[in-house]
Amino acid sequence: MTRPIALLTDFGLDDTYVAQMKAVLAGIAPDALVLDISHAVRPHDIAHGAFLLETALPVLPAGTVVIAVVDPGVGGERAAVVLVTPRTILVGPDNGILWPQAAAARAADEPADFFELTNSGYWRDQVSNTFHGRDVFAPVGARLALAGDDELNALLSDMGRPLEAARRLELERAAELDGKLRGRVLHQDRFGNLVTNIRGEQIPDPGNAAVLVEDGARVLELGAPARTYSQYDHLVALVGSAGYLELAIPSGSAARLFGARAQTLQITVRTSRRTSPE
Amino acid sequence: MTRPIALLTDFGLDDTYVAQMKAVLAGIAPDALVLDISHAVRPHDIAHGAFLLETALPVLPAGTVVIAVVDPGVGGERAAVVLVTPRTILVGPDNGILWPQAAAARAADEPADFFELTNSGYWRDQVSNTFHGRDVFAPVGARLALAGDDELNALLSDMGRPLEAARRLELERAAELDGKLRGRVLHQDRFGNLVTNIRGEQIPDPGNAAVLVEDGARVLELGAPARTYSQYDHLVALVGSAGYLELAIPSGSAARLFGARAQTLQITVRTSRRTSPE
Amino acid sequence: MTRPIALLTDFGLDDTYVAQMKAVLAGIAPDALVLDISHAVRPHDIAHGAFLLETALPVLPAGTVVIAVVDPGVGGERAAVVLVTPRTILVGPDNGILWPQAAAARAADEPADFFELTNSGYWRDQVSNTFHGRDVFAPVGARLALAGDDELNALLSDMGRPLEAARRLELERAAELDGKLRGRVLHQDRFGNLVTNIRGEQIPDPGNAAVLVEDGARVLELGAPARTYSQYDHLVALVGSAGYLELAIPSGSAARLFGARAQTLQITVRTSRRTSPE
Repeated sequence: MTRPIALLTDFGLDDTYVAQMKAVLAGIAPDALVLDISHAVRPHDIAHGAFLLETALPVLPAGTVVIAVVDPGVGGERAAVVLVTPRTILVGPDNGILWPQAAAARAADEPADFFELTNSGYWRDQVSNTFHGRDVFAPVGARLALAGDDELNALLSDMGRPLEAARRLELERAAELDGKLRGRVLHQDRFGNLVTNIRGEQIPDPGNAAVLVEDGARVLELGAPARTYSQYDHLVALVGSAGYLELAIPSGSAARLFGARAQTLQITVRTSRRTSPE
Repeated sequence: MTRPIALLTDFGLDDTYVAQMKAVLAGIAPDALVLDISHAVRPHDIAHGAFLLETALPVLPAGTVVIAVVDPGVGGERAAVVLVTPRTILVGPDNGILWPQAAAARAADEPADFFELTNSGYWRDQVSNTFHGRDVFAPVGARLALAGDDELNALLSDMGRPLEAARRLELERAAELDGKLRGRVLHQDRFGNLVTNIRGEQIPDPGNAAVLVEDGARVLELGAPARTYSQYDHLVALVGSAGYLELAIPSGSAARLFGARAQTLQITVRTSRRTSPE
Repeated sequence: MTRPIALLTDFGLDDTYVAQMKAVLAGIAPDALVLDISHAVRPHDIAHGAFLLETALPVLPAGTVVIAVVDPGVGGERAAVVLVTPRTILVGPDNGILWPQAAAARAADEPADFFELTNSGYWRDQVSNTFHGRDVFAPVGARLALAGDDELNALLSDMGRPLEAARRLELERAAELDGKLRGRVLHQDRFGNLVTNIRGEQIPDPGNAAVLVEDGARVLELGAPARTYSQYDHLVALVGSAGYLELAIPSGSAARLFGARAQTLQITVRTSRRTSPE
């Protein structure tokens, strides 16, 4: 059976770039189920791409081929790579966008192997200098989607060679100091929810935590993270469906409340009630 | 054969929420044809979701599973439901978004049965409090897509229980009084056409009807509804492809003409020429 | 095997028009792979539609059925047509949007045959006056997708009749005079790249060419076209992945630099260094 293929790019859907990639996929792996993770990565923003990738990856079917193209260095020196982890095969430029998935696998004591793509026999006949998504990553990803688990190693060895030192990129995480997390806003969603760089795992006892938002000179005390959006019409903090702490006004929009200042908010979480007198 | 699955949400396509739902569908029903009805429902606007749903439903293949997620009450008390009608199986929150389809079936003397989803064995292992589209509605919809007509009742009985009193929501229709319809603008499309709450069926003899638009103190007399867009470069009224009366400037944009006042326009249709003196 | 179907429209993805077309396709050709070329053609802009079509067509799998609906004359006198070329079968209104593909085939000494659709037996039972994408082009395209190469002629003869004089539309190309190309901006992509009407083929020796941009009274000398985006943080010209000369600021946005003036830029390419003294 053909593996599913999932796409993440900064191409948007107005131009035909995504269509051209899918046309290449259709030519090589016409039976593949093709999923769009998002094409709204901020143009050339590799960290934003890695963040959106992380929100969707845990839900993808095991064995999916992910093609991630946020590629400001296209046509230059950067390598084209494949990253093989036990759950997913990822294809993209070696600019850090795939690194957090290698780091996550290794943190779970799982293998994560990078291969540099060197065999142009797997690419389109004419490779442009400006669109490797269509000319390199799509044909390679489609070919990988056709490969069973037992053929995978031989195919990768034919496509390229092991890469020891892939480009690193750490997903931004809130700093932790003296029982306090200090974070900031990473992403704004369609509901105006402000997704921060504070992970739910960093707040082991949410019922006893307290969230403070510094908006310039003003400090908003939000109390403990809420459990759901549904009962509130004021600003709350809660751990969203991808595991990040969010600021939200469920009946409105936290993004509208703060406007451009959302990027400058300082968010502090006291992870446990002080139990001794001050 | 797997049933087609159609999705309607207020998630947009920039975030990865729709991708996460589709990833769940792909894991359970990889052969299902998945159709996007729209993901541009105004955030949390249940009536807008019901309106967009109605425009697409008559065209969907018979037997399609529709997953409709506009869900401001997610994580709270509202039930999760399935609505079974002869043409379609609909899955979503019990907040009224599915109700007009039940009402339409019953108006045609067809059955329309609601089931409350109670068996978490059909849901994802971890159910978040903020994203039942991914954790409840997608896995339930995918499982229903795998069911043949003969297994459907047993499956629904295992998934939950009949629900007598589902939440009602009436699609807004223009009021009719003394041979006059009084309506307003519901929706603006990409062409700047202003779709009203006046149905074509409410105008039995369009050739003898007359449309008036009150724009503040100004009254525009549009005459009888036009038959096509193609010949006009001024404001016309016509019954559009989904059966609603629209205001349109075929070579331009009615939305641009009225701007924010589009929401306040009063649209009157005299449904027949007066035949007696006043 | 069912042919792939590719869609190009000016419907956008917020309304349900594209969903309705896909629902019709799913009813007739449920196994067809359906590709979205773009739905962001500027409303009613036939030339923009033809341009976007051209950027994607060379990559589509051979035998694909393309349904192209930019149709300001819907419901009026314009014919509905099929264009058969060796690589692709195209369906749409006879308003010029398909013409450049006929011209390209004929320029390559290949056949390109137009058929006028006249047999309403292949259309939806009720044909609206405002949405032939759903009611005529989608059912015809889906039926064509089911046809093998050997049935195609008989099917087309049953669907309609040969059309001698299809509506012409020439894709805009830069004028060439005295070894100079004079062009303008056709399209702006998500990266702020400004795609011009100058084709790469018009610049036979790019290393010896020189690009000048007249921005009102100011003249910017860009030198020879660059080979890649990757090394630059200033304005460059380069031939993009679809074969058009583009103006780009790889680390920024050429569209932002020029703003609304982008439409008025005059772009000149001296296609060869003068080798004799002036």
